[in-house]
Amino acid sequence: MTQYERLADEFQTLIRNGTLRVGDRLPSVRLTCARREISPSTVFQAYYLLESRGLVQARPRSGYFVAAQLGEGLRLPDTSQPQEQSQSVAVNDLVVEVLKLSRRPDVQPLGSAFPDPALFPLAKLGRSLGSAMRRLAPHKLVEDLATGHARLRQQIAQRAAADGLAVSADELVVTNGAMEALNLCLQAVTQPGDLVVVESPTFYASLQALERLQLRALELPTHPEEGIDLAALEQALATQPVKACWLMSSFQNPLGALMPEAKKQAIAELLARHEVPLVEDDVYGELYFGARKPRPIKAFDSAGWVLHCGSFSKSLAPGYRVGWAAAGRWSRAVERAKVMSSLSAAVPSQVAISDYLAQGGHDLHLRRLRQTLRQQRDVALAAIAQHFPPGTRVTRPEGGYLLWVALPGAIDTRALLPLALAEGLSFMPGALFSADQGFAHCLRLNYGAVGAELLREALARLGRLACQQLGTPPGA
Amino acid sequence: MTQYERLADEFQTLIRNGTLRVGDRLPSVRLTCARREISPSTVFQAYYLLESRGLVQARPRSGYFVAAQLGEGLRLPDTSQPQEQSQSVAVNDLVVEVLKLSRRPDVQPLGSAFPDPALFPLAKLGRSLGSAMRRLAPHKLVEDLATGHARLRQQIAQRAAADGLAVSADELVVTNGAMEALNLCLQAVTQPGDLVVVESPTFYASLQALERLQLRALELPTHPEEGIDLAALEQALATQPVKACWLMSSFQNPLGALMPEAKKQAIAELLARHEVPLVEDDVYGELYFGARKPRPIKAFDSAGWVLHCGSFSKSLAPGYRVGWAAAGRWSRAVERAKVMSSLSAAVPSQVAISDYLAQGGHDLHLRRLRQTLRQQRDVALAAIAQHFPPGTRVTRPEGGYLLWVALPGAIDTRALLPLALAEGLSFMPGALFSADQGFAHCLRLNYGAVGAELLREALARLGRLACQQLGTPPGA
Repeated sequence: MTQYERLADEFQTLIRNGTLRVGDRLPSVRLTCARREISPSTVFQAYYLLESRGLVQARPRSGYFVAAQLGEGLRLPDTSQPQEQSQSVAVNDLVVEVLKLSRRPDVQPLGSAFPDPALFPLAKLGRSLGSAMRRLAPHKLVEDLATGHARLRQQIAQRAAADGLAVSADELVVTNGAMEALNLCLQAVTQPGDLVVVESPTFYASLQALERLQLRALELPTHPEEGIDLAALEQALATQPVKACWLMSSFQNPLGALMPEAKKQAIAELLARHEVPLVEDDVYGELYFGARKPRPIKAFDSAGWVLHCGSFSKSLAPGYRVGWAAAGRWSRAVERAKVMSSLSAAVPSQVAISDYLAQGGHDLHLRRLRQTLRQQRDVALAAIAQHFPPGTRVTRPEGGYLLWVALPGAIDTRALLPLALAEGLSFMPGALFSADQGFAHCLRLNYGAVGAELLREALARLGRLACQQLGTPPGA
Repeated sequence: MTQYERLADEFQTLIRNGTLRVGDRLPSVRLTCARREISPSTVFQAYYLLESRGLVQARPRSGYFVAAQLGEGLRLPDTSQPQEQSQSVAVNDLVVEVLKLSRRPDVQPLGSAFPDPALFPLAKLGRSLGSAMRRLAPHKLVEDLATGHARLRQQIAQRAAADGLAVSADELVVTNGAMEALNLCLQAVTQPGDLVVVESPTFYASLQALERLQLRALELPTHPEEGIDLAALEQALATQPVKACWLMSSFQNPLGALMPEAKKQAIAELLARHEVPLVEDDVYGELYFGARKPRPIKAFDSAGWVLHCGSFSKSLAPGYRVGWAAAGRWSRAVERAKVMSSLSAAVPSQVAISDYLAQGGHDLHLRRLRQTLRQQRDVALAAIAQHFPPGTRVTRPEGGYLLWVALPGAIDTRALLPLALAEGLSFMPGALFSADQGFAHCLRLNYGAVGAELLREALARLGRLACQQLGTPPGA
């Protein structure tokens, strides 16, 4: 962590614990420089970072002030406490069902795992698709099938390097979306019956993958902002026959948690020491609200124990189905598995994305996308604070477009879902995010699936429904 | 089988067994009508069919004559006699290696599994890609993800219906090429350790799929022209715990065998009686040289035991990665597995193919493609007859672009491959097509991978190499 990030985090703690309150003025840049013996630019960077996090606002010629926090009274959910024994996984058909229902045109798809496709540069991508395919020599359609389009692999490696993640183009295998990458990686490092560590709650796709491969899940306590509990992970590795981990270190699905870098580094070292591979799902990494892209655990892995999976589906090209794996010491095994299971990703999708990236402008698109998602997160938090039952807890993600809501009292969100669908919106019930279905009172919301106005209205309706079910007035 | 097909088959037998020789005149239409008590149009249809099979030639105002058969002296390989016990499968990395080497630009890729991409209407398809994506509403990129683009599924179902195969759009799941469809279907009907019937030789991808899913292969005797031995299949089903079959009933890879319809029907009935599912790989069905598209075993399956897999990769759009499964009673299970393993096929590829099909002209493209492939088959057979060692045996496929060569004497084609690569061509060694690697003296050739001239030259070089290795003069 840099000096300015440390400084920003200090102020953030002061704001969060109430030492600095809404409207308070931050110490002037000059004063802070003098007290800390640091340069003005470091202080400015720290204040910019706090501003980008929405914690402070600059007022011209007056300085920086603590901003009004939307949904400020909302509390975080507790760190999860999953059952201690491991689980055979059987996720029911509800996932498929909810995803289908979410596609009804009359339903606001807050249960979807995709952001609104209108947020993507689809016209530009479409032009790349047409022109790149016109220029493509026919034999290129059956070249590079297994590993993927050579230039695209280079571009992915170059972008990763710019963000502090060293992977070679040769280590990369392009896949049919990150979903396939994750499945191939998990299969490469496990045998049926093996024990695999996951977060609690965890993305239902990881549970489905475990089910498909006949693996057992060991769900570990997970903090809603900082991710999996390091001590619990350490103990599990020391005492149980863990064969692999599947984690999301940045903007975890469903919590939105972002592990601090120090924790990421500690996990990389811990896994290398125990020689346990990690399948790292990093599909939201580009959608950070902070000053720079958070590095994945893979960035701290020098010995090849991390199988890192990414995708363009969440940040550029939904439906194009282009993801990748940088599978460390398993990269040849994953390449072979890719040939055996589905041969290759679609060539038109790959060359279109490659052409689009070569034209420039992608980073500008990403900046706008992040800004939009961040604003919509704040809209969602404000709407939840206003309309959800008192005692509702919610995460406050620093990236991505998913947040996690824990409703108070005895309510099963699976029963709430049909009522919500009748009111024209969907969400993903919490029970799907654990093998023991221990999050019945929770739900995952996608705040990037529709625009701000529709989002506000949908959440007002959902809050009203939850209040009716619980027999309480609104106002989390 | 229709009356005219039966009549054509009778004449074909007479030609093949030498009763009718090259230059002999077939009985006149009038005479045949009178003798058989059938209509002139039935006789004409039979003669047209024989003509389309290249067995007879019409001479204006003279009648039909038995045609000179290219490579006429070439004998078929024997029906295979695989080991009787079942096999755990471990296909080595040679497949991946050969496929990689086949992509070297200085190598004529006769080892490839794809035809020459220049044979496809890529420009027209590219225009469909551009215009269909421009017209697509953004939300369509995340709709229909699991099952595939709704209109494309309808078009696939309609084309199947026109060929006598009744599948509903609802039964279809669009996949990332047929390879994924086959893998998902096989996984849907098996558990690790299960016994699965395959042909001998069989497509190496089926062996790889069995290996990946930890299944055991039971390879059954297979006739080079008529496919798997029905009696052997019947006995295996009666005496062994067979949990599934994986067969190619039309233009089998690598033999090119086409099962007669009566055998297809018998297999469908046999499997239904034993309640054993069949994964049917039908990727070459469109590439028939006969009068009409051969129906798959699925066409005779009324109880949903056949999981039928097809693709556009071999007949229209290589590299687009669009295939499908019509999985009978497992169609919902395959849909769920698709969501869990790779979510969906690429949307741009799907809408491009759908738009292309809607424009018309696909059947014309297919007619030309079949004609080209058929001519190239004859070029290959003639070159093999001229340049390969005496005693070489070869199949004479009635569709597709793969044929199977059995070299005489003690030769391992794996050792021949590096020599061939040094001479600028590849092939697929026979050892890859069996779990017990029992076809070391055989090889699979792709006669559609390069144009006629290059094909002739490459086969002359390969024949010379084989003769050198065996110490014989050329002339199969």
